Amino acid sequence: MTRDADLPALICELCRQFYGLGWVSGTGGGISIRGESGIFMAPSGVQKERIAPEDVFVLDASDLSGCTVLTPPANSNLRVSECQPLFFNAYRMRDAGAVIHSHSVWAVLAARLFSPRGEPGSFECQGLEMQKGLRGKGCFDTVRIPIIANTPREAQLTESMAGAIEAHPDVDAVLVAGHGVYVWGDTWIKAKTQAECLDYLFRATVELHRLGLQGDA
Amino acid sequence: MTRDADLPALICELCRQFYGLGWVSGTGGGISIRGESGIFMAPSGVQKERIAPEDVFVLDASDLSGCTVLTPPANSNLRVSECQPLFFNAYRMRDAGAVIHSHSVWAVLAARLFSPRGEPGSFECQGLEMQKGLRGKGCFDTVRIPIIANTPREAQLTESMAGAIEAHPDVDAVLVAGHGVYVWGDTWIKAKTQAECLDYLFRATVELHRLGLQGDA
Amino acid sequence: MTRDADLPALICELCRQFYGLGWVSGTGGGISIRGESGIFMAPSGVQKERIAPEDVFVLDASDLSGCTVLTPPANSNLRVSECQPLFFNAYRMRDAGAVIHSHSVWAVLAARLFSPRGEPGSFECQGLEMQKGLRGKGCFDTVRIPIIANTPREAQLTESMAGAIEAHPDVDAVLVAGHGVYVWGDTWIKAKTQAECLDYLFRATVELHRLGLQGDA
Amino acid sequence: MTRDADLPALICELCRQFYGLGWVSGTGGGISIRGESGIFMAPSGVQKERIAPEDVFVLDASDLSGCTVLTPPANSNLRVSECQPLFFNAYRMRDAGAVIHSHSVWAVLAARLFSPRGEPGSFECQGLEMQKGLRGKGCFDTVRIPIIANTPREAQLTESMAGAIEAHPDVDAVLVAGHGVYVWGDTWIKAKTQAECLDYLFRATVELHRLGLQGDA
Repeated sequence: MTRDADLPALICELCRQFYGLGWVSGTGGGISIRGESGIFMAPSGVQKERIAPEDVFVLDASDLSGCTVLTPPANSNLRVSECQPLFFNAYRMRDAGAVIHSHSVWAVLAARLFSPRGEPGSFECQGLEMQKGLRGKGCFDTVRIPIIANTPREAQLTESMAGAIEAHPDVDAVLVAGHGVYVWGDTWIKAKTQAECLDYLFRATVELHRLGLQGDA
Repeated sequence: MTRDADLPALICELCRQFYGLGWVSGTGGGISIRGESGIFMAPSGVQKERIAPEDVFVLDASDLSGCTVLTPPANSNLRVSECQPLFFNAYRMRDAGAVIHSHSVWAVLAARLFSPRGEPGSFECQGLEMQKGLRGKGCFDTVRIPIIANTPREAQLTESMAGAIEAHPDVDAVLVAGHGVYVWGDTWIKAKTQAECLDYLFRATVELHRLGLQGDA
Repeated sequence: MTRDADLPALICELCRQFYGLGWVSGTGGGISIRGESGIFMAPSGVQKERIAPEDVFVLDASDLSGCTVLTPPANSNLRVSECQPLFFNAYRMRDAGAVIHSHSVWAVLAARLFSPRGEPGSFECQGLEMQKGLRGKGCFDTVRIPIIANTPREAQLTESMAGAIEAHPDVDAVLVAGHGVYVWGDTWIKAKTQAECLDYLFRATVELHRLGLQGDA
Repeated sequence: MTRDADLPALICELCRQFYGLGWVSGTGGGISIRGESGIFMAPSGVQKERIAPEDVFVLDASDLSGCTVLTPPANSNLRVSECQPLFFNAYRMRDAGAVIHSHSVWAVLAARLFSPRGEPGSFECQGLEMQKGLRGKGCFDTVRIPIIANTPREAQLTESMAGAIEAHPDVDAVLVAGHGVYVWGDTWIKAKTQAECLDYLFRATVELHRLGLQGDA
């Protein structure tokens, strides 16, 4: 496991990597990781490829219904991410070790393919090897990721995201229409692996549909 | 705020980043930033991923109808960017802190989608979370970015760009048909955030159209 | 030839490069190289862009029907890659010097184009200069790469992959439907060159089909 | 101008950059630059992102009908690039300062769009700002790049490429069907700028065609 002292730098490094993948451009998206001493989280509305370790918040993991700051960042202008209650859904309901929020255009296109008017629904794929990177899934299973409708403020997604988590105990992700995806896992490595596999599955499914080779979408 | 002494290096670093994003290939595109002592601007027609801090011009911010060089670059062969009067439109009319000019292929495709013959018009999108990265916009608003027709010389765009800025007080960008986009903001961070969000919105809108999932284009 | 002492670091470097190409995201894919002292192989289920030289296994090249570990990695939690019997197919049947396994989305799309239901078949292309990067092929030849059906466990592919290798003596690659591609060569450079050329051919063929410019798919 | 002593390192640096752009994967493509003492050229069939300065050949610029090696690379196994007579076409007929050969998939798709059976023809675009990066072209001109048919051996292209150069005095590039593009310029910067602008124009034209927004292809 990664030591708490290394988590702020790891968060910065992962944010730079996610920027390269197109997941966190325009200050969107982010990542949080649960450590021994609390939940480490990047701040709101900052350039994700440029955050520094001293910008990272540590939040109280024993208060998952609220938001208690244990260690604020050096710069007092920084605010806790708007995603905090959504990240906490996964920590509280699934005992997650890390949560990633991506604005990948593939997530948005995949959600639109299955929910053309942004309504609640579910993304589906099957027959793809990368499904194996998802908890408990094989390449011949049908993977269903819930899609929830977007809301004007990110925090307003909290309840419907919790509903989707409850209704889909077999997957560790929730798509938000027109917005992106939340993905988690027992550790930051599992969360990142699932996020990469899902991004691949979203892209492959969209491309197969575009080629007329996906019968079911 | 970034200190003036650091602005030339910052401009070089951002140009390398924009090159990686496909915004400034083939010497096109660029960025300028307003500092305490003047407006810092990359030179014309140079490889943007290879400019050095000593190549950057400083122009007089008190003469926004003209073009007065306060500090020329070390290399006397370098000329002020052709974009200078267009950058100055945003400094003069909007009190911008920075202006970015991108030749992203997504900007060109998005403009063509809404102005098939390169005529004046406006790009539209709605229902996308990344709209929140634009000043005053929510994810359920309709975003309209003006499109102006291209001209043989870049400086000839000055007047029509000024007209579009005046006619669209709610947005900080102007698309140029077949050419690219000008984006600005109060600071270089706001300008870059809006440029990244717009590039994402252009791409998502083009891809949704291609998938037949965008009813309104 | 690369010295054995340098192979673990080379494997890490190539894995980072393949990650950038989109071949090994989500811990999938990998590479193994035959050295003087044995076969060097990345471990199973780890982030390929982050493996370290001490994570690499050395397996006995004189036991190509089994799997004898000569040197285990420093971390005893690491397991031999699931791909090991598939890699060994190429070492045993073709005397390969290196084998690459890519999950590139282009390989998956190309296989689906020719085997729409994931059934055995073959990918075809012709008239492309990059075919020259494949052993014995010219740009006017027709290249045929066998496609085998995927199986729930990677090791279950061993027999059908061996059959495809035997049936296609003129090529050094096997596509797996919904999964990716195995590519090999006499040296790691030849294997990598063929893997890059094939990825290009998969992409070009898919894109030409999408443009309606490929008569034969 | 770049000094001769710096040209081998510059060629390596540009090859790494071109690899990142997808122009020289699978050992294909390359660049040569004319210096004071001769023509500097990367060797044949090597991984372009990994060549070292000592791998670069220097050829005699006073013998442009032949191929006289002035300085061979340190490694005596390396051979002069197959592209040498094609590079020399541009040096001899146009007094070029540098020639780039790219295998970009966009060049191949663009050529196929205008020559669906690989026959001689010409690529066309108009109305795009990036045309200004080409010698003597404005954004409202129609740009025509000759397309020649591919041949089994690269050297067999010499004559038809020379014919295309003669027939199109207004452009500094020749497309080869199914293969890629040769681009040159008075200096390596001009050659690279034109190569980047052309790659952009190829991509934009293909994408516009795919969107049904290009009336003339």
